[in-house]
Amino acid sequence: MNRNSYNIMALAPNTSKKRETVCIFGTGDFGRALGHKLIQSGYPVVFGSRNTQKSNLIPKDAEMLSHAEAAQKAAIIITAIQRQHYNFLTPLAEILRGKVLVDVSNNLKINQYPESNAEYLAELVPGAKVVKAFNTVSAWALQSGTLDASRQVFVCGDDMEAKQMVMDIVRALGLTPLDQGSLLAAQEIENYPLQLFPMWKFPIILSLGLTAFFFFYCLIRDVIYSYVYEKKDYSFFIAISIPNRICPILALILLALVYLPGVLAAILQLYRGTKYRRFPDWLDKWMLCRKQLGLVALAFASLHVLYTLVMPIRSFVSWRTSSSTISQALKNTTQPLNTTYAWLSDSYLALGILGFFLFVLLGITSLPSVSNNVNWREFRFVQSKLGYLTLILCTAHTLVYGGNRFLSPSSYKWYLPNAYMLSLIIPCIVLVVKFVLVFPCLDKPLTRIRQGWERKPQYSE
Amino acid sequence: MNRNSYNIMALAPNTSKKRETVCIFGTGDFGRALGHKLIQSGYPVVFGSRNTQKSNLIPKDAEMLSHAEAAQKAAIIITAIQRQHYNFLTPLAEILRGKVLVDVSNNLKINQYPESNAEYLAELVPGAKVVKAFNTVSAWALQSGTLDASRQVFVCGDDMEAKQMVMDIVRALGLTPLDQGSLLAAQEIENYPLQLFPMWKFPIILSLGLTAFFFFYCLIRDVIYSYVYEKKDYSFFIAISIPNRICPILALILLALVYLPGVLAAILQLYRGTKYRRFPDWLDKWMLCRKQLGLVALAFASLHVLYTLVMPIRSFVSWRTSSSTISQALKNTTQPLNTTYAWLSDSYLALGILGFFLFVLLGITSLPSVSNNVNWREFRFVQSKLGYLTLILCTAHTLVYGGNRFLSPSSYKWYLPNAYMLSLIIPCIVLVVKFVLVFPCLDKPLTRIRQGWERKPQYSE
Amino acid sequence: MNRNSYNIMALAPNTSKKRETVCIFGTGDFGRALGHKLIQSGYPVVFGSRNTQKSNLIPKDAEMLSHAEAAQKAAIIITAIQRQHYNFLTPLAEILRGKVLVDVSNNLKINQYPESNAEYLAELVPGAKVVKAFNTVSAWALQSGTLDASRQVFVCGDDMEAKQMVMDIVRALGLTPLDQGSLLAAQEIENYPLQLFPMWKFPIILSLGLTAFFFFYCLIRDVIYSYVYEKKDYSFFIAISIPNRICPILALILLALVYLPGVLAAILQLYRGTKYRRFPDWLDKWMLCRKQLGLVALAFASLHVLYTLVMPIRSFVSWRTSSSTISQALKNTTQPLNTTYAWLSDSYLALGILGFFLFVLLGITSLPSVSNNVNWREFRFVQSKLGYLTLILCTAHTLVYGGNRFLSPSSYKWYLPNAYMLSLIIPCIVLVVKFVLVFPCLDKPLTRIRQGWERKPQYSE
Repeated sequence: MNRNSYNIMALAPNTSKKRETVCIFGTGDFGRALGHKLIQSGYPVVFGSRNTQKSNLIPKDAEMLSHAEAAQKAAIIITAIQRQHYNFLTPLAEILRGKVLVDVSNNLKINQYPESNAEYLAELVPGAKVVKAFNTVSAWALQSGTLDASRQVFVCGDDMEAKQMVMDIVRALGLTPLDQGSLLAAQEIENYPLQLFPMWKFPIILSLGLTAFFFFYCLIRDVIYSYVYEKKDYSFFIAISIPNRICPILALILLALVYLPGVLAAILQLYRGTKYRRFPDWLDKWMLCRKQLGLVALAFASLHVLYTLVMPIRSFVSWRTSSSTISQALKNTTQPLNTTYAWLSDSYLALGILGFFLFVLLGITSLPSVSNNVNWREFRFVQSKLGYLTLILCTAHTLVYGGNRFLSPSSYKWYLPNAYMLSLIIPCIVLVVKFVLVFPCLDKPLTRIRQGWERKPQYSE
Repeated sequence: MNRNSYNIMALAPNTSKKRETVCIFGTGDFGRALGHKLIQSGYPVVFGSRNTQKSNLIPKDAEMLSHAEAAQKAAIIITAIQRQHYNFLTPLAEILRGKVLVDVSNNLKINQYPESNAEYLAELVPGAKVVKAFNTVSAWALQSGTLDASRQVFVCGDDMEAKQMVMDIVRALGLTPLDQGSLLAAQEIENYPLQLFPMWKFPIILSLGLTAFFFFYCLIRDVIYSYVYEKKDYSFFIAISIPNRICPILALILLALVYLPGVLAAILQLYRGTKYRRFPDWLDKWMLCRKQLGLVALAFASLHVLYTLVMPIRSFVSWRTSSSTISQALKNTTQPLNTTYAWLSDSYLALGILGFFLFVLLGITSLPSVSNNVNWREFRFVQSKLGYLTLILCTAHTLVYGGNRFLSPSSYKWYLPNAYMLSLIIPCIVLVVKFVLVFPCLDKPLTRIRQGWERKPQYSE
Repeated sequence: MNRNSYNIMALAPNTSKKRETVCIFGTGDFGRALGHKLIQSGYPVVFGSRNTQKSNLIPKDAEMLSHAEAAQKAAIIITAIQRQHYNFLTPLAEILRGKVLVDVSNNLKINQYPESNAEYLAELVPGAKVVKAFNTVSAWALQSGTLDASRQVFVCGDDMEAKQMVMDIVRALGLTPLDQGSLLAAQEIENYPLQLFPMWKFPIILSLGLTAFFFFYCLIRDVIYSYVYEKKDYSFFIAISIPNRICPILALILLALVYLPGVLAAILQLYRGTKYRRFPDWLDKWMLCRKQLGLVALAFASLHVLYTLVMPIRSFVSWRTSSSTISQALKNTTQPLNTTYAWLSDSYLALGILGFFLFVLLGITSLPSVSNNVNWREFRFVQSKLGYLTLILCTAHTLVYGGNRFLSPSSYKWYLPNAYMLSLIIPCIVLVVKFVLVFPCLDKPLTRIRQGWERKPQYSE
């Protein structure tokens, strides 16, 4: 239903029944856009303004009155003005008594004021029923009808009936009201449109830092070393070869970092013998952004897959292949099939494919619409069991890729180990600790602690 | 919760409490299906019909009475009859007074009648509380329990209480009611099940047209030219090589067409000096189907990726590779690595990979469940910033692919430039104009215009 | 809005208005977790317990009283105790009269008791308004704030006002209440958290069985046969080659099994001449898990694509390619391009790509958020028309892959046909029968039967 915004406009001419009048205080951009939309949906609109001279911009069908006159004409008053100017409402308190006052304002910064704009409004006009709504919708979206991101209108307020009236208007405009409870939620609703992916900040900064580190590491080992010792210019490795080293490393490290806090929390709970003491703050925050960490890891894994699959098309690779074939042909020799090497190569690829496949499954189940259709038991099964299986497969993929190169001294250029060896550290730690925690002697007390049991139950006096 | 439709059936035997009786007018397919489902959910059902002889098809537990008798037994009457036969209700007006009358009808064409069926029903029986519901559910889906697409039941009506009663029934049947407001919404609700991807029509027709054009263009250049001048049969290019030329071209052109209307709108606003004049109709429609254009472009990009990755497996490609290797071996020469060419080939692939990756990200954020969890600021960040980055990467990918072939005369068979050159025209225009618009001397006035400022404010008399 | 659970906690200090007191019976893990969360959201909390000695675990701001005293202090009582102990409530019946009693309990097995816990509670305390809620939320998730899977709280109850009060609390805790109707829904709500992908069981067991069968089939034909007759060790085929045979076979068979029940149902309806007789049970169940079958098929198809694309990177494949090139070079021969073979190879790949592409489209439209935005007509268009097109493309892909190998005796090792030949049986049957059903002489009566027409209408006496 939510795609044909012009159909909604088309309703206006058919309107046979009268909707109740809505008053809008303020003739700024948002007030006018809302007025337009309301008129299109069949509502009579009255603007309240200091300057009652009617500008061309005000919709033709709207009335233009002083604040007091406009407020008297309607049961619902939308205050499309900025918080700084709210005090003009104080003299109107008597007229606004018992009316529904809708606060649509936004701030410029998160938590700019100690109390939310809507709560401040409710203090100024104690007789009115204040409802917070519409602040997540932009004027531009209202006018153009392209409401993709903002169909949801968060509504909150202390008066149930007032809230219901506002939610009916929201629905009439073709938007989806979401009841967020009492006016206490206004602060959160006002902060919402100011956020820019707050939960993604840490994972993205972390992965950028790691990317930079591993980029220079690989640059030194793969490009500069060859240039210094072999006088070969492999600078074009920067385009594909080095990214294809960095991506799997980051995917593996970030995936391990998704499961590390859970393991740390388990150790902490075992050590403390209770689950009722709060985790340190950093651990709490880390646990809350695990989903984002995992999705960033999946992004790197997908890039790794694309970079790898593109390999046979690269001109460098086809040159290398044909050179080696030609040199064999010229030497008149054919190498026999090395079965061990075929095993290693195939199983390394197969582990990677299965790991990536499970990783994508994990990603799909984290889509909001999928995870909403899944119960708690199913969600934990997927995220924990399948997640650990993914980590095991990806770690094994990297280990088999290394093969017997781990001990070969040629892998240590300038005493620097291959980058993928560094990437194995955290995953191996996580898997080993998790393996230890699965033993009954640790698993049983841990399960009991998580069900609420305490080693030293402390009753207060 | 929405998957075990048979559990809901299983509820019937446990029903200890009585639900209120529901009356259904009409014993057609939909009436019977709804009756069945209601009985399974514990509702006593009375059918009202002219012919009170009970057919085998009527559920066993249902009563069968005349219209008047049936209506008297229930507070809710569902009229499962076609609009043409509504006039039989006029004599029943007195009995139906104050009752809830549920209109479930659909039409055969969009906007078939000037007013919706539900509004027509409300006119015929002015004493009844008319509610529109259930029209988006099919009889077959109700019977079989496979309700995947149609769990949502749009409900609208002027009487809040009546609507609430109907929504309770909807919930009891295991469906999700969606309150669409007053009876004015009935027209839209009745049109809804008749639509077949209305927003997708233009993007799909456009892309089919472009596909046909580029298909013949490439056919002439790649197959017919070779056949005429070199007597070589490359007709098998139709299977993969030519699609793999068309797909990236269409992906790039359609992606550029997503951003072109925004650029045009900006120019128009700058020229007019105001945002309060409507855009021409074609520009409005174009802007409303940008999401669909982008998704079609993503589809072509995905096909391009698959076609490209499959290349080394093609028998033609492996034949070409081995022929060139053999001829080199026979000539006893090994070509040295051409670093410039390696750079070109690798960076072209890397740009394509990154562009496609961002493109997929854009596609994921346009999933309804993802975009609902994102605020307006985040949505614009992704769709605008990331979108332009994608366009830049994809254009650069095509430019580097061209490399220094642009000036080589061998690229111009029959004076026709390579197809990819044509595909670069629109993206380059969009990027150049956008680049110009970013300059402060144009960006500042544009921002002010979009915030509501006008160059020549026009006050009416 | 649903991501910053700590913001909600932060609300507590700002709380200026008093929320109504909530009483919790039971100081177990869930009761305490809920108490904590309620206090954070600004609710005064009273615990009712036999042992009124206050443990450290009870939130500091909560009161601790006997059951009777606690119940008197609040209008809403949450019974966070197990069903076996419900009988202690009988003596409190008088105090609980008219109060809202919230049942949060879960069972250990599906359908453990004849009636749901909530209905049992309503029988024990007939004067109270029983509401079922919160049972899908885990104590751990409440405490940690990581509520990804369980934001949805199913609520049901017979008293509308009581239900509304509970839903307000749910919203205040940052969760999403879902009204499931009357207390009859409690059984289903209590079963919900105990399910582990019930609809996926059959498709997964079926595909595991088929995987095992085809694995041994291919092992015999490809590995053991070569070992016995040619003394060659191809055991490494287990990693990639054999999985890459099994995956497409399973994808094709499972995709055909999605469309087989529809074809069987059509035959049954044509034979019976009516749609009003129930299908056999197995057919009903089969039809209900078609979506899951299709998604498992898509998983196998995706794995097949990954396994195939990885081929040129496999060391075995590059060894085979270079060996054949070298042997040609040594023989001083160059094979000319075989156009027929190029056609076969390219069209086989192109069919596979297009089939997979449509398959992924089908998968995307089955995402809940996408299918919710699509009407019944659109859903059927995608799932039926596009679905059959996918099946046709995938079957053609397999047929062309076979090429002219079908009749070559070398394909029949130990009289066993190639595995892909077996996989073609069901798809070909489905397509042939569907093709027959499309003929007007069968399609017309079928359409009429599905619209409710009967060959032998049976009126009861």
